[in-house]
Amino acid sequence: MELSQTFALLSATPATLNALLRNLPEVWTQSNEGSDSWNAIEIVGHLIQYDHNNSMRLEWILKEGDSKPFPKFDRTSFQTAVHAKSLADVLDEFTQVRTNNLEKLQKMDLSDVVLAKRGIHPALGSVTLGQLLATWAAHDLTHLHQLTRVLAYAYRDAVGPWSAFLGVLQCNGHSKPA
Amino acid sequence: MELSQTFALLSATPATLNALLRNLPEVWTQSNEGSDSWNAIEIVGHLIQYDHNNSMRLEWILKEGDSKPFPKFDRTSFQTAVHAKSLADVLDEFTQVRTNNLEKLQKMDLSDVVLAKRGIHPALGSVTLGQLLATWAAHDLTHLHQLTRVLAYAYRDAVGPWSAFLGVLQCNGHSKPA
Repeated sequence: MELSQTFALLSATPATLNALLRNLPEVWTQSNEGSDSWNAIEIVGHLIQYDHNNSMRLEWILKEGDSKPFPKFDRTSFQTAVHAKSLADVLDEFTQVRTNNLEKLQKMDLSDVVLAKRGIHPALGSVTLGQLLATWAAHDLTHLHQLTRVLAYAYRDAVGPWSAFLGVLQCNGHSKPA
Repeated sequence: MELSQTFALLSATPATLNALLRNLPEVWTQSNEGSDSWNAIEIVGHLIQYDHNNSMRLEWILKEGDSKPFPKFDRTSFQTAVHAKSLADVLDEFTQVRTNNLEKLQKMDLSDVVLAKRGIHPALGSVTLGQLLATWAAHDLTHLHQLTRVLAYAYRDAVGPWSAFLGVLQCNGHSKPA
């Protein structure tokens, strides 16, 4: 996997979310798939928190290596913060956080030696810095994938017989912590 | 389902695809999930063809009602056309086709009586014009969902142990004709 590919995706994600979400009716971006599943605003809020966390893990690998595991990542702490904000604010915040992280990444020495440096994930064990960067991009795609499913959920009845032909309405995939 | 919601999504899709795809490396947008699965360019090409087809079906319901089924929709005929074009050209073409269709839709009388008009889908049987419009939006979401999975496929090895936590790499959902 080329780093240029990963950087291109990481750069594209904020604009993609803006284009998809910013002009949708609020009732839709606040609706979820039932029970405690995430709505669109919570997904963007999670991406903000994930960016902070991945940036910290990157520095952890460089400083601590695999001497001790990454600190734990509380996946729910973002929710309180997000619920006080509008979708527009959350989209703007994600754009800013991602821009800052890309600037940081682009200044780093990401040689093959650095990409092979190892850290310890608390659940997954030994991982490399290169895998962390690849996961950053794949994690964006996981949540874009989830987001299309969350939005489509609102159409599950309105499409009538066509639901059988709409793959997004059949998907039971879901995101786990990365 | 409110029509304003459907129109908002139909309007957002071309810009979303532009934001996500236009600056990705060509090697990525030309790669698929193996065998005869679709790559990013083919997905956008399919959306162009689907827009033409759905527009035709809409007119068919208004003119023919449920007296005879919709003409068949050849889902593969677009591929020859798409393979001669760049991703940028296909994205521009989709934007134009969608803009034209939205202008047409916004000029139509879409009263409850019109939305309840029925046509015959060759495989699904009786469907309403309202269901056709809802499916138009849900179909966009199905292919955005598919697209994130196609792009993530390229990362299936690079993420290492994290693959277990990335929902998009577990998804075996796929799109069927809508």
